[in-house]
Order: sequence, then structure tokens, then C-alpha cells
Amino acid sequence: MKKILDSVADAGLSLWRSTQGRRDSGEKKRIVFLCGKLYSNKGEALGTALAREVVDEYSILSDDDKVVFFQHLVDEYSVDKELIVESFKSYAGNTDINSLASLRKAIESPRMNLFHRINLAPEGTKTLIGMRDDLAQYLKPNPDFKLIDEDLKNQLISWFNRGFLTIQSIDWKTPAHILEKLIAYEAVHKMGGWDDLRRRLEVDRRCFAFFHPALPDEPLIFVEVALTNGLAPAIQPLLEKKEKYSNVENENTAIFYSISNCQSGLRGISFGNFLIKQVVLEIKSELPQIKNFATLSPIPGFKKWLDIEMADTDSQITLTEKLVVAKLGDVFDHNLMHEDEDFHRIMMKLCSQYLYLAKKDNLPLDPVARFHLGNGASIEKINWCGDTSENGFKQSASMLVNYSYNLKTVESNHEEFVNNDKISVSKEILKIIKN
Amino acid sequence: MKKILDSVADAGLSLWRSTQGRRDSGEKKRIVFLCGKLYSNKGEALGTALAREVVDEYSILSDDDKVVFFQHLVDEYSVDKELIVESFKSYAGNTDINSLASLRKAIESPRMNLFHRINLAPEGTKTLIGMRDDLAQYLKPNPDFKLIDEDLKNQLISWFNRGFLTIQSIDWKTPAHILEKLIAYEAVHKMGGWDDLRRRLEVDRRCFAFFHPALPDEPLIFVEVALTNGLAPAIQPLLEKKEKYSNVENENTAIFYSISNCQSGLRGISFGNFLIKQVVLEIKSELPQIKNFATLSPIPGFKKWLDIEMADTDSQITLTEKLVVAKLGDVFDHNLMHEDEDFHRIMMKLCSQYLYLAKKDNLPLDPVARFHLGNGASIEKINWCGDTSENGFKQSASMLVNYSYNLKTVESNHEEFVNNDKISVSKEILKIIKN
Amino acid sequence: MKKILDSVADAGLSLWRSTQGRRDSGEKKRIVFLCGKLYSNKGEALGTALAREVVDEYSILSDDDKVVFFQHLVDEYSVDKELIVESFKSYAGNTDINSLASLRKAIESPRMNLFHRINLAPEGTKTLIGMRDDLAQYLKPNPDFKLIDEDLKNQLISWFNRGFLTIQSIDWKTPAHILEKLIAYEAVHKMGGWDDLRRRLEVDRRCFAFFHPALPDEPLIFVEVALTNGLAPAIQPLLEKKEKYSNVENENTAIFYSISNCQSGLRGISFGNFLIKQVVLEIKSELPQIKNFATLSPIPGFKKWLDIEMADTDSQITLTEKLVVAKLGDVFDHNLMHEDEDFHRIMMKLCSQYLYLAKKDNLPLDPVARFHLGNGASIEKINWCGDTSENGFKQSASMLVNYSYNLKTVESNHEEFVNNDKISVSKEILKIIKN
Amino acid sequence: MKKILDSVADAGLSLWRSTQGRRDSGEKKRIVFLCGKLYSNKGEALGTALAREVVDEYSILSDDDKVVFFQHLVDEYSVDKELIVESFKSYAGNTDINSLASLRKAIESPRMNLFHRINLAPEGTKTLIGMRDDLAQYLKPNPDFKLIDEDLKNQLISWFNRGFLTIQSIDWKTPAHILEKLIAYEAVHKMGGWDDLRRRLEVDRRCFAFFHPALPDEPLIFVEVALTNGLAPAIQPLLEKKEKYSNVENENTAIFYSISNCQSGLRGISFGNFLIKQVVLEIKSELPQIKNFATLSPIPGFKKWLDIEMADTDSQITLTEKLVVAKLGDVFDHNLMHEDEDFHRIMMKLCSQYLYLAKKDNLPLDPVARFHLGNGASIEKINWCGDTSENGFKQSASMLVNYSYNLKTVESNHEEFVNNDKISVSKEILKIIKN
Repeated sequence: MKKILDSVADAGLSLWRSTQGRRDSGEKKRIVFLCGKLYSNKGEALGTALAREVVDEYSILSDDDKVVFFQHLVDEYSVDKELIVESFKSYAGNTDINSLASLRKAIESPRMNLFHRINLAPEGTKTLIGMRDDLAQYLKPNPDFKLIDEDLKNQLISWFNRGFLTIQSIDWKTPAHILEKLIAYEAVHKMGGWDDLRRRLEVDRRCFAFFHPALPDEPLIFVEVALTNGLAPAIQPLLEKKEKYSNVENENTAIFYSISNCQSGLRGISFGNFLIKQVVLEIKSELPQIKNFATLSPIPGFKKWLDIEMADTDSQITLTEKLVVAKLGDVFDHNLMHEDEDFHRIMMKLCSQYLYLAKKDNLPLDPVARFHLGNGASIEKINWCGDTSENGFKQSASMLVNYSYNLKTVESNHEEFVNNDKISVSKEILKIIKN
Repeated sequence: MKKILDSVADAGLSLWRSTQGRRDSGEKKRIVFLCGKLYSNKGEALGTALAREVVDEYSILSDDDKVVFFQHLVDEYSVDKELIVESFKSYAGNTDINSLASLRKAIESPRMNLFHRINLAPEGTKTLIGMRDDLAQYLKPNPDFKLIDEDLKNQLISWFNRGFLTIQSIDWKTPAHILEKLIAYEAVHKMGGWDDLRRRLEVDRRCFAFFHPALPDEPLIFVEVALTNGLAPAIQPLLEKKEKYSNVENENTAIFYSISNCQSGLRGISFGNFLIKQVVLEIKSELPQIKNFATLSPIPGFKKWLDIEMADTDSQITLTEKLVVAKLGDVFDHNLMHEDEDFHRIMMKLCSQYLYLAKKDNLPLDPVARFHLGNGASIEKINWCGDTSENGFKQSASMLVNYSYNLKTVESNHEEFVNNDKISVSKEILKIIKN
Repeated sequence: MKKILDSVADAGLSLWRSTQGRRDSGEKKRIVFLCGKLYSNKGEALGTALAREVVDEYSILSDDDKVVFFQHLVDEYSVDKELIVESFKSYAGNTDINSLASLRKAIESPRMNLFHRINLAPEGTKTLIGMRDDLAQYLKPNPDFKLIDEDLKNQLISWFNRGFLTIQSIDWKTPAHILEKLIAYEAVHKMGGWDDLRRRLEVDRRCFAFFHPALPDEPLIFVEVALTNGLAPAIQPLLEKKEKYSNVENENTAIFYSISNCQSGLRGISFGNFLIKQVVLEIKSELPQIKNFATLSPIPGFKKWLDIEMADTDSQITLTEKLVVAKLGDVFDHNLMHEDEDFHRIMMKLCSQYLYLAKKDNLPLDPVARFHLGNGASIEKINWCGDTSENGFKQSASMLVNYSYNLKTVESNHEEFVNNDKISVSKEILKIIKN
Repeated sequence: MKKILDSVADAGLSLWRSTQGRRDSGEKKRIVFLCGKLYSNKGEALGTALAREVVDEYSILSDDDKVVFFQHLVDEYSVDKELIVESFKSYAGNTDINSLASLRKAIESPRMNLFHRINLAPEGTKTLIGMRDDLAQYLKPNPDFKLIDEDLKNQLISWFNRGFLTIQSIDWKTPAHILEKLIAYEAVHKMGGWDDLRRRLEVDRRCFAFFHPALPDEPLIFVEVALTNGLAPAIQPLLEKKEKYSNVENENTAIFYSISNCQSGLRGISFGNFLIKQVVLEIKSELPQIKNFATLSPIPGFKKWLDIEMADTDSQITLTEKLVVAKLGDVFDHNLMHEDEDFHRIMMKLCSQYLYLAKKDNLPLDPVARFHLGNGASIEKINWCGDTSENGFKQSASMLVNYSYNLKTVESNHEEFVNNDKISVSKEILKIIKN
């Protein structure tokens, strides 16, 4: 059995191409003409040929063309209010299955149907994701485009259901065109190039990504894992190259030190929770000696929060503390960080407070904390000088945090978090806060 | 890069399983309990574990359990009419994007959300298709279940969009567990077993199927093709085994002699049009010498129509004709079919009339004709004694028809068919009708 | 990276074909001409094209042509005695590396070089194996052909070194064209067709084969394994179909019940020892609960030996025993086998003696015993009525034997067998012999 | 069907390991002990376990250990002269097949048998290639080691027969661990890293390599091809990165601009001829519009030859010419190369003479010329300033040459070259020489 490459069949494709496009489209944009044809029943006879033309056409639109096209999608493919009103009346009078179906149909925008048909093309899904990516920059000046964004997002959520994703382990035997994307998409701890990447794929590391069958060459999200002995307290040692990498027989801990989304056209559609939990299973299956699973995470909102608190006269930070904290300048100061015990103690306390107590709408203020705690993880340990990079200093005064994923408590943690706004936290952190 | 088999990871899965099921469910069916948990936000913490449990649980339900479960899906996961009314009012007052989104949300049944979550499991999609298959037998006594069927169908149409299907060529190198399904699913000309199958995969044949990534071991639809010199007029010679099969350098025609849907849970979701057109492209790409593409199709409604016409005193069939047609008995009569020219002539004419003129709601009465003509094909030729099997005799007095797929006319044929109810037909057939 | 199919490139091949073949070959057989050209340096310029022509040409030779061709290989491609004598003299005078190399060259027949060049073609290895297969029937009337057979065998032994073989597990997902070969090649317990095969690939069975990269579609040897609880005493129950096959969590024993060589052109080149030992490793790796490994083997020489002993007045079989054994007729007699205890006891004893004591050239007389005991296995248990088929009755009075492969003793057993002619045997068997 | 990874099975391997090694080996090197055991019949019982131990042991030998080990292979595994003499006498008396076989056996060194057995291990072939690589540095001080080198070379020639190699196309989708080897092994025009490599794998390039099934991760030889319009005259433009790479619909020429052997342990075993001719077929099959095939090759011996001729008072280079050539300094001089027409004319003439007329043992003096002309190629064109790199200047005064591979003349060119020492050359070159 052979999976046929669509490219092979393309040889014969031109025979199917609709021939009227350029001729008939006159003043109108060709893509508008093609979409109209695709949306109408005329397109069916051509199999996927017309959808391919729309995809090709979209790929060569200029920025201005795109705005015109998006406006057309708003003007011509939105719901018909009168039809909705009428369908509702009918439903209100008789709530049978048919009137419900009619109402449902009335409320689904014709755009959705158009998107379904564009998706017939081999690169259809990719084009729709690209469209949503493109849309992002036009949403502000064109609030109406939000209608398109909503439709696309709803559709993509359904199509990118976890059940359709495959998890793949990435290593040095992975094809280069995939690896190159890891270098490009890494969002937490940037890679300088192939050497940096290679170090992250050595025998003491693991890397996993989700893929969707319609985008076999595009990772959706990936996570980088270091296998260590005990909790890793700092990122720079993990990223350093070594002469030789030892194998992992003696390691007992998997550290998730970077997790990056790859497709901005899928923004707002969450894969991270599923990926982390699947990776825990994968690693347990490959390496039964690994008992602990934890992140080594940035605390991106800490410094900003601290600045606000420092300026706030009502802040709970005491004046004495403020005086000490004020030493923190604009650059990493080795003496201060490593020798000033007072400074160390107070900063650790404030960071713990930030993670555990700072809230917005009853949820943790820090976005990374919100994500992991929402997944059922626990705040395990705060690491002083965990990230001595410029960015690390600016985000969180060089601190990092380990969130632990304990298989036995993840469900109850999650429920407590969701139902009772309770955060799971280690005794060590609690002690720091109370001091 | 390695695609990880979910089965491998299952080793560690039990650790994630929710433990409260049996205990808490009390009198209620366990699957009801699990679905409730899965639907609620509690399920998220467990990744896909809870969805797997629902899938496992469904697989062991008895028939009675299924009815209870389906009733539960109707009672507890249907739309809330009051919420719809309220949302509509809000929308009617202010048709902004948010009110529209709220109305849309109100009108989508909670079942859809539950189905999305069941689909998280590795066998989730298969389970949902199986559910729809199971539903079929309960729809009559439980008309409410149509609500579930509708939801499932809508969801599956979206997920089984052509853009997500892959076409695969099937041959004697295909894994046995796939081939075995071809034997089971062949619906037009039954296969007796592996020998029959092998003949249909010899060097002078082609076979193609659509697969969906979530069901890699299950063909959705497949088509069997014979490569011949000129239009094949009869099915039995095509199915006969030979000493030796010659290669296809000298053939100029591809005959689609059987097309079968495989998944009854996907009934009403159409793949055939796309498959035929894709296969035309595949064959043109592999074998440029193939110039003609046509089916060799049954005429399943002809005999029944003939019986009705014969009994109808207002029928356009003349009395003289009726006297001749009356010779047609209950079994194939060699003399009659092969030596009675009058009988031959009249039957050919009536069959041509049936295909070309007999309509229902302005569409061809014959379902196979409706399908191919709707795709843009043309009625090319009627074949006397094309199918001498018992079934062939009973359906269509042993006649078969070739519908031709001409690349250059398929679009215009389709448009004429859809817009003007016009059927494309060869001059030969027209001449038979007029005689 | 894409592995290129040679067939694709064949499109352009004709450009390279030597064009002089038919023209120059005159009266001589074309294959003779082509081999001459291939052997000479002229062939090099054409890459593999000339070798392909030889392969094609051989494939259409008649039986008579083959004899002529083989005779040509003897007459024209054998060693040159004078060259050997000369080279030896030179070596005897001065045993340096060059004179040794010259002698070695002189003693290698030009045929070997020709075979190397035929092997350049994609189907070259297969053709050479086929040649050796063909040769078998001509060896008796043409003893000279033994020279060709020897050369081919020596070459194939080197090319089919275990290091180049891959072991593959065969199951119901294996491509049909491979499975079909299992049906054809099964030599111990015949399969009636696909149903029989399927039973042997159910969840309670394993099957492994060796493949060589140059023959990806041809198993070289395969072994069928049943997973059981304790030693399986009989073959028919293992081959029977069941309603349902349970999985193997509770099984503790792997029974090798059939092992078949597939390529008669590789006769005399032994793979079985390596296969069995590799399969033990594979099964231990997949199923750690399997602790015992044993065969369920035929005793093909027992009945014949018994007949000779019965007729031999000097036989160690006593007259009393002979009288009982004489009851054994020409067909399986249920009463005799199942109710006559005397008969049972004496036959078991004689069979044990046959396996343990009957020798030829100090090796076990029974060929299957010779194979397994030579591998380091042990005679574990003799099974009365283990094979009630007609063949089983004729070979061994329906008895079968388990040879056990114990990982800890296989090396010492082998050494005792090779160095001291000692056979490893269970206490149970020894007791039967002594009684 | 699943190909089993040997690594998986290794889990159970330790059970088979011979346990006596360390204990019994006493003073002797362990590898000597293991080889002795492997060579003796004792090894058979362990399947491939003992061979794996030898492979492991070899991998940790120090340089000194290797010398000891190689000496041991010479002392203990060489042919037995007396046995050869005896066998020869027996053969001389009676030249039957058995005496010939005995003589052949006597003349094959026991080392060969040992190598066969080492090859049983999964990494066996790789180890033997590594051994021959290691040997290279010890051959001078230990001329006896040439015996080992000869045995290994003979064995590897047989195992690396073209029929066992697969050609694979290399592109940016190739796994990184293979691509990394291209960077390392490129021998003609060095790559600085991944960016250089990527440029050589763009849409206007092709790259092909031979692989052997026993070394799936190691290319044996690879060739880099540029698709161009007409003969490419210079290498630097081919290696330059561009903003955008256009596809190759309009190109008509394939330029082989770099060909590199990868395995020094396979030195002296030639793959280049086969690879070039196979790649011609591959490209013709993929891109029928490509009509011309030529190299862009270095002329590595030109400058050296010129220096000798310049110093030679009997040289055919005239005094006038010498005066002009003398301008050629130690570095590339733009004015000289681009504006001194006299210099240009004379150098072109001398280079043409060098390629066409300079011989050694009747073969072209230049090694690259020898290779391509021996393959049946033709000297097509000499390119002034074709390689302006430092190395290009030093080797050949910055000139490069195109050898053309014309499908229709390659066989006759080859025969003329081999039989009559004739070189195929373009009229243009001849004209330059005559001027």
C-alpha cells in the first residue's frame, strides 16, 4: 500500500482547472471570483481543483489585497440577520429537530462553509491557519474582522482536537527541515543555531512535539526536557555544551525547561496541558527510573509586579524591605546577588508572595504560574540566580521556579484550583512566605 | 524523529486514571458518571485518561445499556431552550459579535462538547463513528435519538473534510489486515475470499481508497479499477481469473467497476465524487496512455421501475412492447437474451428511457445514475447481458451501464445538471431512445 | 531523504543498453555473448546496464538453454591449471604477500568474478540464487556442474552472513505478498490457506523471519511460535481455530512448533541456529514473563529406524518388545494408541533410545535432533500422540519431541556435544530409557 | 511486519554473554581470547553474542593494543605454508573438485574466517571497516600488516558489491545525523557549516549518495549536482547563497561539481563510476528536460606538473612561453588573470596539453582526468578562473575543467580508452592545443 503524494498527481491537475477565472473576473479580484465559484455548487464538479486555485491565489495576495479580501469575507459571507430572526420564530413556535437545525444553519456564517471548501485543497488547512495569522495585524483597525477570526478559531479548535494530534519524539535523527523550525520557534531560551540545538538533543535530553496530520512538516508545540539528578536549579548549566554526555541510567528527574508554541495562527488554542501530560507518560514508559517531573520556568511578571509594588505606598512590602530591594539596579550585580544575604532573603520572600498570593480575577497574576497551576502542578521551589541572562534579570530578577507535576495529586490540585481558587505549594515556599 | 505509538505509553497510563468511578457512581451507569466528569472541567487535569475510560466503557455496553446511554445524551446534553430564547433576545437587541457568539453557543448542544472531549482518546473518533453506527437501529423506536445522530453527523462531516483524507493505492503488497477489510466491505460485486481479491489486485487492475489519519487501519471508501482496451461491456469477464495477467502498456481505458463505502457510521457523508476524480488524476499520472475513464455500473432501480410501468395502464410503454417485455421471467434465459432480437431492442430502449427520462424531484430516479450524473459524468453506453449474475438479473435484467468521466466536460455537465436538470448522454443512447 | 526505487530509474535505462548483442552474437547464445562482454572490461562503462541484460536473458532461458549455459560456465570460466601450477612455483620459491595474492587469484575461478558482476544488477542476487536452485536438478547427470554449485555456495555463504540479515516479526499487518510466501514455504505443518495462516498469527502466536536486504520480498527462513502455559504436548490443538484468542499475560512458555527454510537456492547455508537464538531474545524482550523456550518437533527418522531394527535379528530390541511393536499397522489405531499400555510404554522407550542412542558418525541419527542438539538444546520430553496426522504417523508413530533451549546451559551443552559427543537429556527421558 | 531494532533485543543479551572471558584470559589480551573462542566452534552456541563482545572489545582498544592485536592476527591467523604445499601436491596429482576445494581452503587465511564471524555482530561490518581504517597508519612500520589489509579489502570488495548498495537522494528533509556527515566528508569544496550545506540542497541542486544496508547511517560516497543552463564555468557562483532560488524548469544541464568518498576504511574500492551513471539515470527520470551531464572538476596535478616542466630544460614548453608563465606568482593576481591575454592564451594551452597529453604508464597523469576518462567521459572545456579560491590557485592556477558524460558515446569512449589509450576530447580543446 502506498500513500500517494499529492505532488505526483498534480501533473495531471491542470486538466481540471477551471478556465474561466481570469476571463470572467473583470474588475473584481480573482480570489473573490474563485471563492464565489467555490462556495456555489459549481465547484463540486472539479473535485479539489478549485480549492487549490483559491489556495494558490491567496498565497500571492499583497497586504492590501488581503485587506480587501477580508473585507469581502465580512461583507458577503456573514450571517443574515433576517434569516436568523425568521428561523428563531419558527423554532420558538415549534422546537422540533428540524426547526432547531434550521436555526443552527442560519446562525452559522457562510464563511464557515467557504472555509470548509478551501480546506479541500492539500494546503488548505495551512492556508486557513496562515489567514488567521495574517488577520492578527488587521484586527485593531478593522474590528469587523473579528468575525472572521472567531469563525476561523472555532473551526480550528474543532479540527485540532487532541485526538487528531500525534506526539513525536524529536532527536538528532529528525529531518533537518523540522529541526530548523525548532531553532526558529524556540521562545523561552533562544537558540543561536545548530550547535545550540544539537546540545538540546543529546543523550541526556528529550524533546517532544505535537503534529497534526494536515501539517506534517510543522510542529504545533514542543517541549524540551533535561534528565537530571534532582531538581535542576538553573538554566545556564543546562544549556552549556560539554565534552561528553553521559547516559541517563542514574538520573531520576525530568525537567521541562522550555515549552514553545509554533503556530501563531493557532493562538488561543491550547495544547500545552496535553503535551506535558503525554510526555510524562512517554518518559515513564522509556525510563522507569525517572520518578520526578518538574518544570524549570520563568516568572515573567515578577519584576513588573515588583516595580508597581515598590511605587505603591499601600503596598504590603514594608519600608525596610523596600530599602533593601531598591539595591536591585538595571544589571545583574554579582556581589549583590551572591553575598548580600538580606537582599537574597527578602527577594525570595517577595517572589514567593508574588507567585502564591498575587491574583487577578482570582487567578494567579503570573501567566506561567496560571498555566501550570491550572494543569494541576504545584509550586515546588524558587531558584535564586536560576537565569543569569539579561532577559532573566529583566523579567524576574534572575529567579526561576520549579513547578512539579506529581501524578498522584495533579487531579485534586486541579480541582482545588478550579473550584476553590486554591494553589498547591510546597512547605518550603510556605515557610519562606511566612518568614 | 519517531512517531510514538500510544500503546507504548499506555504502560504508564493507569497512574492517571481517575479512581473514583466505580465508587462514586452508585446506582448510575458508570459511563454516565464518566461522561459527567469528562464534560465538567474536572476532566482536564487528566489529559486524555478520562476520555480513554469513556471509550473503554462504551465498548463493553450491552444493547440495553446503549439505549439508556443514548437517552441520557438526549435528556442531559441537549440545548436549553430558555437559554436560546434569552440569547436571541440579546442578539436581536444588539447584533454585535459577542451577542452573536453567545447565541451560537446557546444553540450548540452540550453533546457536541462532550463528543469533542471523547475524541481526545486515541480511539475516540472510531468510538464516535461506532456510536453513530449503533444509533441507526434505535432511531425508529426513539425518534429523539435523531438529535444525537444530527450532532454526530455534523461533527463528522467537519472532521472528515476531504482535506484531511489521504488517498492510498491498494495492491498485493498492502498489509493483510487492510485487504481483509476490502473483502468484507465490497458491496457491489461480492468477493468469495482471498483468491477473488488477488485477481482484483493483479497488474491489470488498480484499487484506491481514502483513509483518515485517525483511522489508519480502516478504509473509508474504495474503488476498483480495471485497465482495458475500450469500454468494458460486462462484469463477469473482468472478475474471472486467468493463467497470466499481461501488463497494461496497450490499454487505453480505466473502468471503475466497483465503488464501496466502508463505514456505516459515516453514512450520508459523501466521499465518492472526490475519490473518482482523484483516481482519474492518479491514473493519468502513472499511465499517460490511459485516455478514457468510465464506470461499469449497475442500474439498481431498473427492474423495479419496469415492474411498476408494466402494471401501469397509463405507462408510456406501448402494449406491443409490454407483450414482448412480458417474456422476461424470474431467471436468466439464455435464448431469450441472446437470440430474441425484438426483446433485446425493446429492453435496451426501455432501459435507456429509464436512465435518461425517469425522474423524481427533477433528479434521475436511479440512485447510481443520480450520483454519477451529479458528478458531471455522462451516460455513455448500455450493455446487454453485462451482469449475468442472479443479482444482476434481479436489479436490471442483467444490464449494466458505462458512465464516462470526460475531463473536459465534467464541469459543464455538472452545471447543466445542477442548474438546468440536463443530463449528458451519448448520441448512441439518444438514438436508442428515439427508435 | 528518499530511497530511490530502481524501477523509476529504469525509464532512462534503455539509453545505456549495449546495442551490439543480437547483432554480434551470431550463432552463439546471446547470454554467452553478454556474459563475455560483462566479464571483460568493456562492461564497466555501462554501469549496471549489462548486468541487467544478463539477468533478463537468464530469466527467459529454456531448460535446454540452461544446460548449455551451465556447460559454458564450466568450460570457459573454470580455473586454469597451468596458471595455478606456475603461481604455486612462484609462491613456493618466495612466500611474500604478492606471490600469495597471485596464487590466490589463480585459484579463484573466473566464474566468481562473473558472478560478482551479475550481482551488480538489481535482481542479481536473486538470479544467482535462482541459478543455484536450477542447478540442483542437473548435478547428477552433469557432475562437472558441481564446480558451479561450489562457487555459488561459497559466494552466497559470504553474502548471506548473519550480520547482513534482519529479523522481522511477521503478523497480520504484514503485507500480503510476504504472507502468501509463508503459506507456500511452510514445510513442517502445511497450511491450507489464509484461514490457517491467520490462526498462526493470532495474539497468542509469534512468527519471525530472516530477510536479506537484497531480497526484501523473500523470507529466508521463518519460525512459528506458540505462547503456552507449560510445554505443549501436541500439535493439532495448536493449529485449531478458536472462537476467541486470549492474550498472553499468563503464558510462561514459548513453543517453536515449526521452522521452515524458504530458498532452495540457499540449501546448505544454515540460518536456523541464529534465528532461534535471536527469537528467544526478541520474546524475552517483549514478554518478560516467558521463562521457558522449547520446540515441539517431529522425529522424522524414527519409524524408518524402527522398521530396520524390527527386521534386524541383531537388534537390541527384544523379541518380546518386537511382538508388541508389531501391532503398529499402517494407520493410526485409536484403541492401540490410547489403551494399550504395554504398547505405549515400549514405544516411548524405543523412541527415547532412538533419539538418545541411535548415531551415525557419532552424531544423532535423527536430522532434527542433530540440528537442535548441535545448537545446544536438550531432549526434554517425548509426547505420545503429539501428531495424529497421517504424516505424523508415518514419520514417527505419531510422536513428537520437545527440545528445550535453556539460556544458561546452551553453551556448555553445545561444547559437550561438539567436543565429547555428549547429548543433553532430561532425567525423565533417561528414566524411560532405563526402564 | 516490523523490523526489529537490535538494540531492543539487547536487553536480554547479557544472558547469552560468555562468562569466562576476564577470568580465563589471564595475561593475554581479552580480545585475543575472545577471537580464539569465536574462531573455534565454541562460539556457535551463543549466536551473535560472542561477536558482539569482540566488537565491543575492539572499540576500547588503545593504539598500542591495536598493534598487539594486529600482530596477533598476522602471527596466528595467517595461511599455513605446509598445508598449501601439501594441498597443491594433492591437486597436482588429481585435479578433481575436492582437491581443488582443499587447495582453495588452504590458501584462504584463517583471518578471513575470523572476519566472517566478527561480522555476525550488528556493528560487525562497521568494526571491520574501522579496523582497515586503523590499519592504514601502521602499514609502513609493519609491512606484515599488509596481509590483514589485503584480506579485509578482498572481503569488503565482495560485500560492498554495487548490487547491495542503495542510492538515496539527499535533501533538506534528510535526517540531521546524515547531513552532518556530508559537512564532515565533503572533500572537494569544503563546507563551513549548516548554511553552506543548505545552499547545496536548495531547489536548484541535487545530491545523491550510496548507502550499504549494514551501515544505514553512513553514506559511502556522495555527489553534489547543480542544475544550470549550459555548462557551468566556475565554482564560486555555484556555492554562493541567493535571496531566492528559482525552480529548474528552464535548466538543461546537470553539473557534477563535487564527489566525495566517505569511508577511508573502504579506500581502493571504487563506487564513483557507478554513482555518476546512476545519478544520470535518476536525473533523466525526474527531469526529462535535462539533456547535458558534465562535471566541473579540479585539475589537481596541473600546477605541480607545470613547475616541473618549467624547471626542465628539455621541456616542450618554449622559452617564450616560459617567460610568460613565469609571471604566475604565489597568489591570485586579478590583473594578470583578467587582462593579460598572452598569459591567458598560453596557460590555457598548457593546461589542455597537460590534460590531454601528459601521461604516466599510458594513462592520464592527472588523477581526476584518469577517473572520468576511464569512465568514458570526454574533456569538454577548460574554464579560466573557474576556481579563485586559494586551493584552486595552488592546484591548477585557478582553472577548472568540464568532463562531459554523453550517454551515447560513453561505452565507445571507455573502450577506446582501455584498449587503445585514446582520450575523448572536444574540438575546442584540440584547437587550443594546436594553436
